[in-house]
Amino acid sequence: MSAAISPLAPRTVPDMPRIDGVRLATAAAGIRYQGRSDVLLVLLDQGTTAAGVFTRSKCPSAPVEWCRAKLSGQKARALVVNSGNANAFTGRTGREACKLTANLAAKVVRCRPDEVFLASTGVIGEPLDVSAFDGVMEGLVANAQGGGWLDAAKAIMTTDTFPKIATASTSIGKGIVTINGIAKGAGMIAPDMATMLAFVFTDAPIAASALQSLLKAGVEDTFNAVTIDGDTSTSDTLLAFATGTAAANGAPRISRANDPRLKAFTKAFRAVLADLAEQVARDGEGARKLVEIIVDGATSKTSARRIAMSVANSPLVKTAIAGEDANWGRVVMAVGKAGEPANRDKLAISFNGIRVANRGARDPSYDEAEVSTAMKNPKIQIKIALGLGKGRDRVLTCDLTKEYIAINGDYRS
Amino acid sequence: MSAAISPLAPRTVPDMPRIDGVRLATAAAGIRYQGRSDVLLVLLDQGTTAAGVFTRSKCPSAPVEWCRAKLSGQKARALVVNSGNANAFTGRTGREACKLTANLAAKVVRCRPDEVFLASTGVIGEPLDVSAFDGVMEGLVANAQGGGWLDAAKAIMTTDTFPKIATASTSIGKGIVTINGIAKGAGMIAPDMATMLAFVFTDAPIAASALQSLLKAGVEDTFNAVTIDGDTSTSDTLLAFATGTAAANGAPRISRANDPRLKAFTKAFRAVLADLAEQVARDGEGARKLVEIIVDGATSKTSARRIAMSVANSPLVKTAIAGEDANWGRVVMAVGKAGEPANRDKLAISFNGIRVANRGARDPSYDEAEVSTAMKNPKIQIKIALGLGKGRDRVLTCDLTKEYIAINGDYRS
Repeated sequence: MSAAISPLAPRTVPDMPRIDGVRLATAAAGIRYQGRSDVLLVLLDQGTTAAGVFTRSKCPSAPVEWCRAKLSGQKARALVVNSGNANAFTGRTGREACKLTANLAAKVVRCRPDEVFLASTGVIGEPLDVSAFDGVMEGLVANAQGGGWLDAAKAIMTTDTFPKIATASTSIGKGIVTINGIAKGAGMIAPDMATMLAFVFTDAPIAASALQSLLKAGVEDTFNAVTIDGDTSTSDTLLAFATGTAAANGAPRISRANDPRLKAFTKAFRAVLADLAEQVARDGEGARKLVEIIVDGATSKTSARRIAMSVANSPLVKTAIAGEDANWGRVVMAVGKAGEPANRDKLAISFNGIRVANRGARDPSYDEAEVSTAMKNPKIQIKIALGLGKGRDRVLTCDLTKEYIAINGDYRS
Repeated sequence: MSAAISPLAPRTVPDMPRIDGVRLATAAAGIRYQGRSDVLLVLLDQGTTAAGVFTRSKCPSAPVEWCRAKLSGQKARALVVNSGNANAFTGRTGREACKLTANLAAKVVRCRPDEVFLASTGVIGEPLDVSAFDGVMEGLVANAQGGGWLDAAKAIMTTDTFPKIATASTSIGKGIVTINGIAKGAGMIAPDMATMLAFVFTDAPIAASALQSLLKAGVEDTFNAVTIDGDTSTSDTLLAFATGTAAANGAPRISRANDPRLKAFTKAFRAVLADLAEQVARDGEGARKLVEIIVDGATSKTSARRIAMSVANSPLVKTAIAGEDANWGRVVMAVGKAGEPANRDKLAISFNGIRVANRGARDPSYDEAEVSTAMKNPKIQIKIALGLGKGRDRVLTCDLTKEYIAINGDYRS
């Protein structure tokens, strides 16, 4: 793990309110790490609905397959997350490990194994020894309480340099509702690293199918618009749980995602996802700069996304930003290789609001000193105007530094 | 430019025979570099046919557009290549620079500007000052001779650490024919770097359309199967020229690429392309290991290529190899993210012939010490068996080191 906290970490940590029907507990099970918590148990009151979105990898981990299958039940009573071992590419023993963990949790929580959701992050290819959970599960259930969100976020960290939490409060009808989220890691996988995991909880009374629609829509411009290195984990998991307990405070029960009473909630829910996703980018391995790429004037939003992702994943663009070099030539290159409609002679590119290229050539007003000063900023915005249509999109990433190579490539000891 | 020669550079340099009808000359025009040659002129005898393939970038450089347009004429009398300035993203002045350079060359060579082919590599976004050619063009024509292939390869270098040349000899009918090629750089673009350029010359009497077919087919498993960082230059150019002078030695004139008399030539031509392409991978920026990725058992060759490219372009796979870590988990990740058919539980992965993963889990015979020793080899072969079909493909790349970041990301001075 990287020792120093990312210079891009948020300056303040939000106070996380309790959510009725959600209780948390963490423990140190010694799965891989010593002297730190590595298991999170979340207890969910009866009536909690569940939704989830997962990695698009064709080789998903065992817990991803487990959760996908259990979502059909629409109900959740517990979530067990461990760090230190991803239980990925572990074959039949991996599937067995999921079953055993869910059975164990179901027994102490007193629910059905089908109502237990699972996520794992850490080493891949090593069998997950579920006996580690044996010794801690009863204590976790006994100690579970409404607070401890920061501890929960810490327990699921791997190469993360800071815990990621976010919260929002809004109302549905006359009832106040709360949304809390925790997340870890991003766009990477390997021994000692791996995977983006995020879990969002609310007391809003929302049917599972509506929650699923909200989540699917919400992820598109948040977690799906973040990339660290273009590498996709086999274990990426984003789960949402709604306890429905706010119904007691006057929040109406919602069965459809397009219910007009859900407007404010949808916005707040998306804000929590966006906050967590941005924190993930701010903690990209070796990151020294947060990079926002805005593409407009594309032929469609999809085309804008592809171009933005091509720029965000370009090693040459990312190393240039690490070098504080407003290298718009590399941006042109990355636009050109995206394969999407682009006309070189209509292209304009800005770095932090300073237009450096316009109409297929360097901007006549280009001032090296001005641009160099702007590039020292820890947040870099690259704006690419294609001038073809109305398609617009935004993607977050970080720079590519020697520290990334050190974290991922230094000789094994 | 990087000072040290790549440790992966070929140990021997081939003797390059003359090719009747091809004369070379280089000069130092001071376009950007000082104290080295930066212009190459190749004179081609009357009757020379031309073919070319170019970057797929939607934002190509001015010389790429120039060559594409001139290929319709099917004839070539001269090739002018400069290093130091890519004449890319230079707008109208870029197009003007091409025209002026071709006019200048045509005047001294005594041919039509349409018969002059152009390529540029180096800084992008800076206007190319064609007056630099003014002072050297007449001398180039006067000094052009049949030898000097290594000097020609040196004149077109940018961040290359060694010149790239290759040769082959074969026969068409009763006539002996020769194929010579030179190349530079790979998959990158930026001030001081940029671009893959390759030029292949033969005395074989081959019609332009047949040469074009040969080139298009030959590039697929050679230059198109090499990636350094997944970034595509705006200027990638591969041109082939056939003087036809071997007709005087009994080589029959060939008008169709599928002419059976062309069998040995096709193989030799492809070998020259493959040799140059491999040298490009061996000179990847910061490369310390040559990496060959073989995918078999895919549902098609196209699918195998996509999976191989996904692995070859994965920063996490490339940093693992730099760290001499047989990290098959990252290979699984890269297979999974390719989006192509793959069944985790059928997957087998080998590093340098040692199977490390099989049927969705670590190979039972896995021996850490044995694998670690194998990973110290400067050439690493990753073999991925998907077990689904008969699709097979091979891609070459290199590792991702801190040196890559240093070359591409160090603060501008």
